[in-house]
Amino acid sequence: MSFIDTLKYDERGLIPAIIQDAENGEVLMFAFTNSTALKKTLETGLMHFYSRSRNKLWMKGEESGHTQKVVEMRVDCDTDALLIKVKQKGGACHTGFRSCFYRKVEPLAVDTDKYTEDGKKLFNPEDVYKGKKKKAR
Amino acid sequence: MSFIDTLKYDERGLIPAIIQDAENGEVLMFAFTNSTALKKTLETGLMHFYSRSRNKLWMKGEESGHTQKVVEMRVDCDTDALLIKVKQKGGACHTGFRSCFYRKVEPLAVDTDKYTEDGKKLFNPEDVYKGKKKKAR
Repeated sequence: MSFIDTLKYDERGLIPAIIQDAENGEVLMFAFTNSTALKKTLETGLMHFYSRSRNKLWMKGEESGHTQKVVEMRVDCDTDALLIKVKQKGGACHTGFRSCFYRKVEPLAVDTDKYTEDGKKLFNPEDVYKGKKKKAR
Repeated sequence: MSFIDTLKYDERGLIPAIIQDAENGEVLMFAFTNSTALKKTLETGLMHFYSRSRNKLWMKGEESGHTQKVVEMRVDCDTDALLIKVKQKGGACHTGFRSCFYRKVEPLAVDTDKYTEDGKKLFNPEDVYKGKKKKAR
């Protein structure tokens, strides 16, 4: 018996995963995972997700080398969302930023129509993904 | 024109929202919101969500008083997830814990079959919700 089998997955068999930096608490990314990807995550110690657009399981960093070593895994009150604390190698975002949440709504108002970019850029995605348009790999 | 109209909502018109404590970085809860709830959030300064199970817009704390004052709102690289930093009044979780993520997987292994509860309990839900079984209100 595994806790993985008792989690509540949505109609697509997915569960939301919030990825947080284990050291400084920065939220790095948000993605969906599933039971197979979770088993793989626990077996390898490295974060695996399920991509809806590509319809496949993927390991974060499989192409970029920017892996996420799992330090702690938490579950919410309804057992339908995960909070996973990781040790992030390089940047979590495929755009080159450390966190995918590199833009903020400023001013904090309904009529704000663009974002303020204030995240920390770590790499040039063209160097890492060899010019191919890839998402967060 | 509002950034709210440019966000990518899922097929149900929802967008995931990660709620983080603006002061200490603790992830407090995860829920879905929508464009109407977001407009309401920005107009009032208090976090509003959309409940799939109850099929209605709700303000966090509308019954418990445990409101979330929005301090910062961030959007991810794909514009399909939000990270919202808040000033939390009382506990975020309907179970009485400060965070909904009050349980962790320990040991971090596939065959772990129960959770370790280590969150901070702030209130007795029966006192706050007057004995009614309610979710995170």
